[in-house]
Amino acid sequence: MVDGHERIRNLFSQQKVMQELGAEISRIASGELDISMPFNEKFTQQNGFLHAGIVSTLLDSACGGAALTKIKPGNNVLAVEFKINFLAPASGDSFIASGRVIKAGRTISVCEGEAFAFQGIEKKLVARMQATMISIHEK
Amino acid sequence: MVDGHERIRNLFSQQKVMQELGAEISRIASGELDISMPFNEKFTQQNGFLHAGIVSTLLDSACGGAALTKIKPGNNVLAVEFKINFLAPASGDSFIASGRVIKAGRTISVCEGEAFAFQGIEKKLVARMQATMISIHEK
Amino acid sequence: MVDGHERIRNLFSQQKVMQELGAEISRIASGELDISMPFNEKFTQQNGFLHAGIVSTLLDSACGGAALTKIKPGNNVLAVEFKINFLAPASGDSFIASGRVIKAGRTISVCEGEAFAFQGIEKKLVARMQATMISIHEK
Amino acid sequence: MVDGHERIRNLFSQQKVMQELGAEISRIASGELDISMPFNEKFTQQNGFLHAGIVSTLLDSACGGAALTKIKPGNNVLAVEFKINFLAPASGDSFIASGRVIKAGRTISVCEGEAFAFQGIEKKLVARMQATMISIHEK
Repeated sequence: MVDGHERIRNLFSQQKVMQELGAEISRIASGELDISMPFNEKFTQQNGFLHAGIVSTLLDSACGGAALTKIKPGNNVLAVEFKINFLAPASGDSFIASGRVIKAGRTISVCEGEAFAFQGIEKKLVARMQATMISIHEK
Repeated sequence: MVDGHERIRNLFSQQKVMQELGAEISRIASGELDISMPFNEKFTQQNGFLHAGIVSTLLDSACGGAALTKIKPGNNVLAVEFKINFLAPASGDSFIASGRVIKAGRTISVCEGEAFAFQGIEKKLVARMQATMISIHEK
Repeated sequence: MVDGHERIRNLFSQQKVMQELGAEISRIASGELDISMPFNEKFTQQNGFLHAGIVSTLLDSACGGAALTKIKPGNNVLAVEFKINFLAPASGDSFIASGRVIKAGRTISVCEGEAFAFQGIEKKLVARMQATMISIHEK
Repeated sequence: MVDGHERIRNLFSQQKVMQELGAEISRIASGELDISMPFNEKFTQQNGFLHAGIVSTLLDSACGGAALTKIKPGNNVLAVEFKINFLAPASGDSFIASGRVIKAGRTISVCEGEAFAFQGIEKKLVARMQATMISIHEK
């Protein structure tokens, strides 16, 4: 479904915050989407780790993008809500936020997201999200 | 408790992401803390609204700051997790994220956050957070 | 809106679990609904407190009922999801779960719930819920 | 670790609510625990499905039990909070709630739970939980 993925990459490119963060889509599959971002000191909290809200930003967009792969063309998705647990400090050279659809419904989709930090060859899970997305008919 | 507030303002000033967002502490009281931020196109999603993750960033720091007002000096707080509902598009000239402690415990504190968008004289509730913070003994 | 409240009491009376718990609607107002339940040893966890899931059961129904007061007749509500923090042991003679609508939408409503335990003249907050409800057109 | 599992079965048998629901531990492994329950009309909501709060009760205990397999003997766990999405009506002959530890920490453990409904040979995912548990030193 190349057209669907084009549409998703296009929507993503309209999220100015992603350019600001230096974030890019690194993988799209049916029901799955990964976003990558290099470490950037500008988005840190007091200990020098990526701020929890920035990790949330990546995961929210990854979950929304994953949901988009499963809904019919011409619809868009918005986050109704999400819940996120922080499992380890978001320290590392780069980060990947992986979104995955758990259940795709006509109106409501539920997604899971995992954020990983990479330091050299080491990878650690830093956060886990469970998100609810709603399909909106685009005008 | 001026000293406590000094400490909180100091910790906040070490969150580089807040400077990047142009966010400032606009109010501190016992168990409460507000963060303000002007609209900034750089942090928007595809519809031109502030990205859900940026709203989360403000609320997470507001809740963490509110929790800090209630814990003993020398301790810090970290977000264990939060849950956030998005109630309206985050559009407006400026935003305020208000954090409030619901229950301050020795180890765990639970906070509520509300984010408001302001457009001229209009104010609307755009998001609501329920967050769990843990007290960490600072080295 | 007496008819609306009749409808809600009628729906509630069809929740067999509420009879089993000995739970009753103790208050209905626009956007608000309270459910009361006496302590019952049969629904306790290992420390003799009401089980977290039973507190959740009361709050989920209180939030759903609160949402029902705000949607148009002929529709029903279902829980999309909820998040609940446990703030104190659910010990006491009786319990009240209060649901309140934060934002009533055409499709999605967001509610807040608070559960209180009563022991003699003492009242304590034992749990806090943030819930998302969806309106369903009843067949 | 037979002794650990004995301890968990023992704690579970002290949850009176589980006997009331007819629920049993059906599987224990390191970081994992399943609870099974037959359908019981007494715990239904208005449509005849198992009430969302009862599904939450099973999942909360499954997550707590899974966390118990990973903490040191002599400690107990309590739910700090959980978030649960309801994915399909909880209808069926029987139910299994599976809890799994995502991250076991010294103080905080994060778990995931999935509840399944079984009808004949069919199995469907009805709910998904993300829970935060805290280790408590038992007196």
